[in-house]
Amino acid sequence: MSAPKKVVLAYSGGLDTSIILKWLQSEYGCEVVTFTADLGQGEELEPARKKAELLGIRPENIYIEDVREEFVRDFVFPMFRANALYEGLYLLGTSIARPLISKRLVEIAAETGADAVAHGATGKGNDQVRFELSAYALNPEIKVIAPWREWDLTSRTRLIEYAEENQVPVPKDKRGEAPFSVDANLLHTSSEGKVLEDPAQEAPDYVYQRTVDPEKAPDTPEYIEIGFEKGDAVSLNGEALSPATMLTRLNEIGGKHGVGRLDLVEGRYVGMKSRGIYETPGGTVLLAAHRGIESITLDRGAAHLKDEMMPRYAELIYNGYWFSPEREMLQALIDKSQEHVSGTVRVKLYKGSAAVVGRWSEASLYSEQHVTFEEDAGAYDQKDAAGFIKINALRLRLIAMRDRRLKG
Amino acid sequence: MSAPKKVVLAYSGGLDTSIILKWLQSEYGCEVVTFTADLGQGEELEPARKKAELLGIRPENIYIEDVREEFVRDFVFPMFRANALYEGLYLLGTSIARPLISKRLVEIAAETGADAVAHGATGKGNDQVRFELSAYALNPEIKVIAPWREWDLTSRTRLIEYAEENQVPVPKDKRGEAPFSVDANLLHTSSEGKVLEDPAQEAPDYVYQRTVDPEKAPDTPEYIEIGFEKGDAVSLNGEALSPATMLTRLNEIGGKHGVGRLDLVEGRYVGMKSRGIYETPGGTVLLAAHRGIESITLDRGAAHLKDEMMPRYAELIYNGYWFSPEREMLQALIDKSQEHVSGTVRVKLYKGSAAVVGRWSEASLYSEQHVTFEEDAGAYDQKDAAGFIKINALRLRLIAMRDRRLKG
Amino acid sequence: MSAPKKVVLAYSGGLDTSIILKWLQSEYGCEVVTFTADLGQGEELEPARKKAELLGIRPENIYIEDVREEFVRDFVFPMFRANALYEGLYLLGTSIARPLISKRLVEIAAETGADAVAHGATGKGNDQVRFELSAYALNPEIKVIAPWREWDLTSRTRLIEYAEENQVPVPKDKRGEAPFSVDANLLHTSSEGKVLEDPAQEAPDYVYQRTVDPEKAPDTPEYIEIGFEKGDAVSLNGEALSPATMLTRLNEIGGKHGVGRLDLVEGRYVGMKSRGIYETPGGTVLLAAHRGIESITLDRGAAHLKDEMMPRYAELIYNGYWFSPEREMLQALIDKSQEHVSGTVRVKLYKGSAAVVGRWSEASLYSEQHVTFEEDAGAYDQKDAAGFIKINALRLRLIAMRDRRLKG
Amino acid sequence: MSAPKKVVLAYSGGLDTSIILKWLQSEYGCEVVTFTADLGQGEELEPARKKAELLGIRPENIYIEDVREEFVRDFVFPMFRANALYEGLYLLGTSIARPLISKRLVEIAAETGADAVAHGATGKGNDQVRFELSAYALNPEIKVIAPWREWDLTSRTRLIEYAEENQVPVPKDKRGEAPFSVDANLLHTSSEGKVLEDPAQEAPDYVYQRTVDPEKAPDTPEYIEIGFEKGDAVSLNGEALSPATMLTRLNEIGGKHGVGRLDLVEGRYVGMKSRGIYETPGGTVLLAAHRGIESITLDRGAAHLKDEMMPRYAELIYNGYWFSPEREMLQALIDKSQEHVSGTVRVKLYKGSAAVVGRWSEASLYSEQHVTFEEDAGAYDQKDAAGFIKINALRLRLIAMRDRRLKG
Repeated sequence: MSAPKKVVLAYSGGLDTSIILKWLQSEYGCEVVTFTADLGQGEELEPARKKAELLGIRPENIYIEDVREEFVRDFVFPMFRANALYEGLYLLGTSIARPLISKRLVEIAAETGADAVAHGATGKGNDQVRFELSAYALNPEIKVIAPWREWDLTSRTRLIEYAEENQVPVPKDKRGEAPFSVDANLLHTSSEGKVLEDPAQEAPDYVYQRTVDPEKAPDTPEYIEIGFEKGDAVSLNGEALSPATMLTRLNEIGGKHGVGRLDLVEGRYVGMKSRGIYETPGGTVLLAAHRGIESITLDRGAAHLKDEMMPRYAELIYNGYWFSPEREMLQALIDKSQEHVSGTVRVKLYKGSAAVVGRWSEASLYSEQHVTFEEDAGAYDQKDAAGFIKINALRLRLIAMRDRRLKG
Repeated sequence: MSAPKKVVLAYSGGLDTSIILKWLQSEYGCEVVTFTADLGQGEELEPARKKAELLGIRPENIYIEDVREEFVRDFVFPMFRANALYEGLYLLGTSIARPLISKRLVEIAAETGADAVAHGATGKGNDQVRFELSAYALNPEIKVIAPWREWDLTSRTRLIEYAEENQVPVPKDKRGEAPFSVDANLLHTSSEGKVLEDPAQEAPDYVYQRTVDPEKAPDTPEYIEIGFEKGDAVSLNGEALSPATMLTRLNEIGGKHGVGRLDLVEGRYVGMKSRGIYETPGGTVLLAAHRGIESITLDRGAAHLKDEMMPRYAELIYNGYWFSPEREMLQALIDKSQEHVSGTVRVKLYKGSAAVVGRWSEASLYSEQHVTFEEDAGAYDQKDAAGFIKINALRLRLIAMRDRRLKG
Repeated sequence: MSAPKKVVLAYSGGLDTSIILKWLQSEYGCEVVTFTADLGQGEELEPARKKAELLGIRPENIYIEDVREEFVRDFVFPMFRANALYEGLYLLGTSIARPLISKRLVEIAAETGADAVAHGATGKGNDQVRFELSAYALNPEIKVIAPWREWDLTSRTRLIEYAEENQVPVPKDKRGEAPFSVDANLLHTSSEGKVLEDPAQEAPDYVYQRTVDPEKAPDTPEYIEIGFEKGDAVSLNGEALSPATMLTRLNEIGGKHGVGRLDLVEGRYVGMKSRGIYETPGGTVLLAAHRGIESITLDRGAAHLKDEMMPRYAELIYNGYWFSPEREMLQALIDKSQEHVSGTVRVKLYKGSAAVVGRWSEASLYSEQHVTFEEDAGAYDQKDAAGFIKINALRLRLIAMRDRRLKG
Repeated sequence: MSAPKKVVLAYSGGLDTSIILKWLQSEYGCEVVTFTADLGQGEELEPARKKAELLGIRPENIYIEDVREEFVRDFVFPMFRANALYEGLYLLGTSIARPLISKRLVEIAAETGADAVAHGATGKGNDQVRFELSAYALNPEIKVIAPWREWDLTSRTRLIEYAEENQVPVPKDKRGEAPFSVDANLLHTSSEGKVLEDPAQEAPDYVYQRTVDPEKAPDTPEYIEIGFEKGDAVSLNGEALSPATMLTRLNEIGGKHGVGRLDLVEGRYVGMKSRGIYETPGGTVLLAAHRGIESITLDRGAAHLKDEMMPRYAELIYNGYWFSPEREMLQALIDKSQEHVSGTVRVKLYKGSAAVVGRWSEASLYSEQHVTFEEDAGAYDQKDAAGFIKINALRLRLIAMRDRRLKG
């Protein structure tokens, strides 16, 4: 790879990406463009602008954007149509944010004539893979710079030294080591590393940042009603909401009731296992509600096919293949199924759990007439079941006859 | 089908199967053998003996058996190795009990020279399918009698009349209609029908029989430790327990904390959707714990393959194909994966939720050395990740180049 | 089911469906509408009109249609996009024709105010299932009459008697039993039954009707070039052809070279195994060619996902679920993959085989620069492969370390 | 990676691996152990011993072994139980040989106290991945040396120079560039590169080495009978044969009739597409025969599940994951299915094709009584089919009712 001339950096405004910014300038002597996105991580963005300016970035090279609606509408919601869970439990909060960031990095590179993008993910994690696969899929000629894999600033001490030697301001609270590492966006907050590295030990209380401890959550359950259209949540308690607003509200409500905590050991794409604490309050509510509305509007054949495809779909997103033909093929399959996934779900929130307690829809496939224990007025002829069973049993009976014959 | 001469009936001792017993005698003039199993449904079995005797069954034709250990060891535990959930949520408590009953019916038929078996499942449900597919798979020549599909006792009134006309004692509380229908065994209690038939309405409190209302559960969390060997739970808080005892204890503990309630609309194999309320306290704890021990002992490749197979496996059990070659093939795959799924999981129970908070094992694949944020002493070379990504990106880049070329 | 008043019958004009026609009139006293379709079975349709008139059908109730283009365009081609093979070998020639017939039956029923449809498939085969599932999926209230499951004309003798008693003309050559049964359409000819019922015996020569015996095929290979657009064949040797014309030509060429014979024992949906002789000359060429063009235009990720879905897709079509949400979901997935499956394939036909020997496309993903043994000018850095392997090996090494530790 | 001290080299005795041998000695100053295996590639092994001695390898460090029986018994046959085809067509002849070689390399390393293994695969291909993943899976501490990824001998000229400078004898016919590259073993011969790099051009005749041109094959078909036990071929025309002898004979017969040629563009695991010419005469016959015996002995449920798993299984072998838990899990599933896959298949070979024309077995599931067009003596009640269809149609009818309601 020839040296980059102009680099678009995914820039948070924090110490680490500020050091990267400086390092890119000095290591490659290249122009740096910063991209700071509001994905709902809950931090002010304007300080990032000031910091970038302070580090010598020209104003026209500072991109600060609120991408929350795009994030939820084009990434989170399509993923939730699939009921995606990685390894049965993880709602993919970090994974799903990376492709959007890469997409904007590559687009800004095209706008600004940059030939490279850079990110602050380490060489041991999944995020480097997600950032880079997305970038390459969108621009096959782009250069990708991953400073954590290149430089020798491999300890906190060395990093702070470098910052001080290079006039990167070091906030007091960043001098020591953080007891764990955090990633946050509108969908979730994840924590990992350091104090969490022994998977036998319960995560300490102070790790949780976004959800109330279920023991401290309200003693009275709260009921909410979520309206869906074509598989996406569109209203809360009767009020129409935009995608990002919807997720924001569900986060508030879910978080208040301690919903969405997960302590998980997962298999990383780069091969080792890691332990993470995830808080996904709104997403957890949304998943339950989406399964609830599907339960009455989705036919068994469609629902089971989706369920069988789901682990693969989740794995693709986890591994960073959002922009791949196979993810898009699966998305086409999933989206096709959602045409009638519309209606309303009633969810009960209480001390850590979100339970579906009611669901109704104009597009419901539930037929009380067919299922009832009462007279069904001829809707269903129980005698048909005898033939159904007999024919389904035939192959099993032929096996049993064969086995008898062989033993006999 | 020629008329049966001797029938083994799955007999609970309740009113409905007593009427069936009588009906078999009068309709077919055949000898009836009763089989009453203790699957952990929580009812005395000896009254069933008395009732059978009263209805004219000869003592040697009355089979009463405690099959709880066999049930958990040979059916429930193998299924839990797969983390089986039907339609993402249902733990298959009813489905998994049916094959065992059919197996014993067919075995008793062989022992007693009976040519038929009979059950009390209706023509609208899944249980008839499960009973009969299992029976045919185990004895291809067996006759199966399903009175609910044959007789004309299609209303409660007619049924009671028939009972009275035929000297079947009718307990007072069975004269009216039950507000819902119940099935129970050591794994779960399910309730459905009548008051539960409107899926928009929250299930009334009185439906729940086996779990405390989470709001009334203890205000203090309880921690338990479950030990696993080769995928099966073998000890609780350090005490070795037999399979059935293990599940019994987990039911007590889970039930006390309101764990394992589920309100679900599901797609029946016979085509319509139905709504059920399931209570699976011990099973819910067990599933969480099993996933917990797998999370550190099962490789990603093995775990993901299992996850992809799970919906199919669950569907097979739900649909009644326990005794089918494809279920056995999947079981071979699953069991192969469990060789090292041994260790201990710490679970926190609190007001309806069961959360894994710690897990450890001699067979753990978790390597703190590989995952640590600290120096890893060369365990992992971050530069390898660059090549890993580059090679994985190549096909995506070739697609992007093609797409550019076509557009250009 | 109440008695039908007006029935649309899938009518071939042959003896069997003529008897059905008569039987419907006399059994149900209902008006009969006949539908005779040209699916490329190679028979004149006008005789069917005369015969229907003779049997008392009013002219406005006689529907005769050439549906070959619709058949290939909307059924055969979408299926070939999936490279569908049932049980690894069968090209689904009969299965794919049934949904189209049912669709027209149901549409004609709507047009003519009929309340029922009828078909001539027997109760042992798959076709009854295919006809009826399609009919019910398109009109949930339609009545379906399957005379072969209802009447008592269970031997050839009884059938001929019935015909003679009811003024149905019996051609001389239909008095005896045919040595096997045939189904044909533009995609294939299938033969089964009677002389073919012993799967140990080679099928006699006279069974084959559409393909030359490879031993008698030309001694010189023939090369053809098939052009594809978005997964569908659109040109032959440079000449643009409509779907049905394309398949007709491929049948001629394939048949001449003895391509497309298959002797198969397959598992029927209704439970038993049956043996069929299939001749699918054009389809066999088309499948090879389609795989050929996919091999250079379809990414590995997309291609493998398709391959994994294929058996399920083929099973759905074989079992009669063309008009099901899950087939449509899979079709969406497959169609999504075909966007760039365009280009040309060169096929060599010789004495029973059709081999792809060349393929090229503007949308090709094949990159000589990347794959070459020669200098590749930096297109591919071999050192990346080391990292790729190291990272992929990590989880396997962690397993091996664990296993050593446990053994040690 | 610290420098290796003793290396076990996969040594063919050819020029390239001789150069590697020398390079290892001079580059690392390490002791070299050579391993030369007879996998049925059709070359004498003793010249490899002489050559190794000539290059200074001590006699006790020269391992020459005939592993043909192990190869077929433990690798080829288990794979054929799955009917494995990569991308629908490729019989995995190269892929399946690599794990065995790695296994012996690692075992010899343990025996000789070597700390590293080395192979002669290039950095662009799949074989490096297969060798190395297998090696790491079997010994997590082993060092792997892949000279082609390390050295700078990147042109033929440089390679020959190096040979001459280092006293590696260069046979006259190896001075120029081979027009294509070959790999061979008992299962197949593959050719790729150079003259084959344009996938639009038909492969020249001289590429084929192991199969007669179909046009020059005998004008008379040949019939053979292959006996199977538990999924493996055990006899040919009634003669019991060992695995390797069986494959050798099938190669002779298949090759004589021009069977098993394949011209394929495939997606490599390392990302690019490549074109290969494969000749797999015996394997092609074996696959057809195995499917033939499965067609009568394997139940539909088992067969379809296997078919759905096959692409994944083939991909794992192609990608080099033979020694992975997921391959072993799939193998357990496949092997479970083969218990009754025993019997005899009659295959007709003629000018490039191998067609199953008959099959019989004591374990057959084919029931003429059930499938016959004649009276079946009550084996099958056609009326059952009506119920079967009605129940299967119910969910489709409920969808249709819903859709009508929404439109109405």
